[in-house]
Amino acid sequence: MNAVNRQMTLRRYPEGMPRESDFEVVTSEIPDVGEGEVLCRAQYLTVDPYIRVHVSPSMSVGYAPTTPLGAPIPGEAILQVVQSRHPGFKDGDFVAGFGGWQDYCALPGDSLRKVDRGLAPLSAHLGSLGMPGLTAYVGMTKLAEAQAGQTVFVSAALGGVGAVAGQLARIKGCRVVGVTSSAEKCRYAVEELGYDACLDRTRPDFAASVAAACPEGIDVNFENAGGEVFWAAFNNMKPYGRVLICGLVADYNDGAPPPGPDQAPHLLRMIALKRLVLKGVMVADYWDLRPRFLEEVSGLIRDGRLKSKEYVVQGIENAGRAMIDMLSGRNFGKTVVRIADAPVD
Amino acid sequence: MNAVNRQMTLRRYPEGMPRESDFEVVTSEIPDVGEGEVLCRAQYLTVDPYIRVHVSPSMSVGYAPTTPLGAPIPGEAILQVVQSRHPGFKDGDFVAGFGGWQDYCALPGDSLRKVDRGLAPLSAHLGSLGMPGLTAYVGMTKLAEAQAGQTVFVSAALGGVGAVAGQLARIKGCRVVGVTSSAEKCRYAVEELGYDACLDRTRPDFAASVAAACPEGIDVNFENAGGEVFWAAFNNMKPYGRVLICGLVADYNDGAPPPGPDQAPHLLRMIALKRLVLKGVMVADYWDLRPRFLEEVSGLIRDGRLKSKEYVVQGIENAGRAMIDMLSGRNFGKTVVRIADAPVD
Repeated sequence: MNAVNRQMTLRRYPEGMPRESDFEVVTSEIPDVGEGEVLCRAQYLTVDPYIRVHVSPSMSVGYAPTTPLGAPIPGEAILQVVQSRHPGFKDGDFVAGFGGWQDYCALPGDSLRKVDRGLAPLSAHLGSLGMPGLTAYVGMTKLAEAQAGQTVFVSAALGGVGAVAGQLARIKGCRVVGVTSSAEKCRYAVEELGYDACLDRTRPDFAASVAAACPEGIDVNFENAGGEVFWAAFNNMKPYGRVLICGLVADYNDGAPPPGPDQAPHLLRMIALKRLVLKGVMVADYWDLRPRFLEEVSGLIRDGRLKSKEYVVQGIENAGRAMIDMLSGRNFGKTVVRIADAPVD
Repeated sequence: MNAVNRQMTLRRYPEGMPRESDFEVVTSEIPDVGEGEVLCRAQYLTVDPYIRVHVSPSMSVGYAPTTPLGAPIPGEAILQVVQSRHPGFKDGDFVAGFGGWQDYCALPGDSLRKVDRGLAPLSAHLGSLGMPGLTAYVGMTKLAEAQAGQTVFVSAALGGVGAVAGQLARIKGCRVVGVTSSAEKCRYAVEELGYDACLDRTRPDFAASVAAACPEGIDVNFENAGGEVFWAAFNNMKPYGRVLICGLVADYNDGAPPPGPDQAPHLLRMIALKRLVLKGVMVADYWDLRPRFLEEVSGLIRDGRLKSKEYVVQGIENAGRAMIDMLSGRNFGKTVVRIADAPVD
């Protein structure tokens, strides 16, 4: 056990795209373990777009309060039990819990879930088998109402949510068109994940390429990007199409509303004219689906029908950079931070 | 029978709020009646917000093509049969059909529906028992998912759609908050139509009054207005709330998108954070509901549980003004144009 608890904290709230200097590693005591609690040591930290929301006071909402300056950045983590005062856990167990970006945390045992290393590598429990995967599962099984043969559009196509959403849509028999940020990533999406097509959003002809790749329009847009990617998809929605608003990474760095013109009236008008349905996707509403999700998706992983790619950054001191990489598209796959000598399954 | 067919046409496409000089009455021949067709004489013309969409080239979509200059403005009308070459209709029958703004039209008999004067006055078949009423019925019974005790917010609370939507919500046991454009209209909404509260959107404290009238937030916003009224409601939506995008009158006069800031990213973010559902409402998708709708709503009218108010403008030559009155809120109730000596039931 290290003598200290390293925590990755905020020195100041980022304005626009975060910079490494917005983050700061501080050290604190290893926390005491209360009755019913479990002391855990971090193995893998997740770096997901929603964390940007937590470090922006202007986006504070009830369930996502702003992280105080100097406190560890929140987020799910894969942890190993160091000391248990809860009957459900013993030393050495691997668990998932909201430990945040720090080496050690003491969490109520009831808030932890054991991680089954037999299902998939540890870090996958933050991705395809974690909250991002469940988010994709909820979207595709509960909200998208996608039928075989329909066109499903997935932005951030290799990300934690997107990769699972796209592959679940493919398995359902949909035509799946992805979006990511380089030719190499697009190739991976098509060749490894089975997207029918994947578009590079950094190309100047991106918007035109959406229309060309979706000649009959888009039935379901699983939106993980926001900004120009959202609009390119929105302008190609079919009547009665569904737009799942899951992530809006492109907009998360904006403090104030961007300059005009104001596109909101156009957005509303198109909802009416095309009878679209826009729905917010929030995994927290569907925890009860987790057992079914784990069974189904781990089965797909085992059978080689659902793959994922990870972008692993080593060391808690680099977690801020990992977040910047993810927000700017420099990651290649789901971003995780590996702590110290965490096992690589 | 008049010797000529007066038609209210467009002289030019309105820019912004239409002006009376944008419209022009022209005369043409009374049309010939083909086999299977019915020659009709107009009794009442409807003046609904969607007609503004038809006279704006920038809002042309498949099912709502732009009206050519010089052609009669489209819209449903109550008609009386003058000459029938269809076995289902005889001279003197009252029917509803898409005759547009003109004295005479020859329409396929199969496109007409007989109007039952026993159910309600003739003109009501353009309002509470017509397309606006069916739109409200579809919204409240198929899309809103409103439960008794929930708060339903209805803009254009006395309009053809709004008055029916608000009263159906009240009958369902919801708490109904309306919006209209004067203290007198608000009083009417509460005292005659049974709204629990009604807010005057012309007051400077309007946005604050929405929050005060909906202390627990809004479960369903039946949006008939757009613009500031939309935002005042949207900012008070409860998590999981439904926003039915039916009419956006405030925005219909805008050709280009209004100046910034761009509120679309905020709109999308709130959909995600509050897990809202936005849905377009389009009556044309639900013609099959009409028999059930007519039976239910005419029963409610007969029992005095559902009322309506009409704003009747006399003469086809004043139809343009009627539309301007409606778009600017000078109407008091559902706007219709009475032609010549049409019966007042």
